[in-house]
Amino acid sequence: MKIYDFDGFPNPARIRIALAEKGVSEQVEFHSIDVPNGEHRSESFLKKNPGAAVPVLELDCGTCISECTAITEYIDHAYDGPSLTGETPKQRAVVHMMQRRAEQGVMDAVGNYFHHATAGLGPNLETNQNKDWGESQREKALAGMQYFDSVLGESEFVAGESFSMADITLFAGLGFAAFAEIDVPESLQHLHNWKQRVAARPSIAG
Amino acid sequence: MKIYDFDGFPNPARIRIALAEKGVSEQVEFHSIDVPNGEHRSESFLKKNPGAAVPVLELDCGTCISECTAITEYIDHAYDGPSLTGETPKQRAVVHMMQRRAEQGVMDAVGNYFHHATAGLGPNLETNQNKDWGESQREKALAGMQYFDSVLGESEFVAGESFSMADITLFAGLGFAAFAEIDVPESLQHLHNWKQRVAARPSIAG
Repeated sequence: MKIYDFDGFPNPARIRIALAEKGVSEQVEFHSIDVPNGEHRSESFLKKNPGAAVPVLELDCGTCISECTAITEYIDHAYDGPSLTGETPKQRAVVHMMQRRAEQGVMDAVGNYFHHATAGLGPNLETNQNKDWGESQREKALAGMQYFDSVLGESEFVAGESFSMADITLFAGLGFAAFAEIDVPESLQHLHNWKQRVAARPSIAG
Repeated sequence: MKIYDFDGFPNPARIRIALAEKGVSEQVEFHSIDVPNGEHRSESFLKKNPGAAVPVLELDCGTCISECTAITEYIDHAYDGPSLTGETPKQRAVVHMMQRRAEQGVMDAVGNYFHHATAGLGPNLETNQNKDWGESQREKALAGMQYFDSVLGESEFVAGESFSMADITLFAGLGFAAFAEIDVPESLQHLHNWKQRVAARPSIAG
């Protein structure tokens, strides 16, 4: 299988971590898409993902899968190893709920701030900015961090006692926040401790 | 199990359709949350969902699940009947991808338009509007409809040849669009035909 992405970007990081957690990174052919120069909006790439975003997983049959949750569902079910999306109906529900909260409350909020209220990817790509709305998303991201600090004061991982897709989304979201200069407030110690624990996992520390 | 929702609202509709598709609507105790009067922001409801939104599924063990994809994952895996979230890794990936596109490109775009660029739920609840951004989301919803028309010109359902969670999201999103007075352009015949077929399903027509 092939992955089209851009190394170091926040959503691609989610999939690279998922692949490493399942121990299958070596089975993937990575193709770099030059996002800073707009290659994700080229006609050939839009055929792979009309949403004009990386990462995209291309299966050997030619089917292209975009959206990180969808790619993670594929990887998690196609390969052995510890489950990233939960095994019982209740686990699956909790993982998807917490993943969505991390996506909406941190990852996407930071992305919206970055693309709307900062220079983002530069004037050629950021042609439709709304600064006020972007600023409101910065506040949302900070509220999201606060929420996850309270969650991580009560459980070891975001969706309970096992590492999951929800941790991956939050970790990549905090990486994006650091890049966009939204610092995690020092008072959020549970979140800081969790981040350190996750950063030390072999799938991330290497 | 209990569902906290508000009958007729777009996200609650997604779960009511999923329950009916699985044939388990009768096993649920529905509790109405008075969203138009702000009950979803009350202290007691925020304990069930800090995101202050319906629907919420409360399991018999007391665990509360919010976010429609998460609730649908629970229902789909806890009960027999035709799969709504896909069975093979590839099916699961395609369903989640198309579900997310329908959510982002139609359901949430319409919601953002409704809450930001119209009177929405009224001045007591819509305290943080951004009209320009709301208007841009109306355009996004129309582009989403166009995209799904092209998809439905090539396959019977949103994620291929079987009805799935992706169809539910799109159908509820179009219901919300009608309510918010974003008409599906008449030229999108594949989308109109699919909508009619889906509306005739026993889970919706009753």
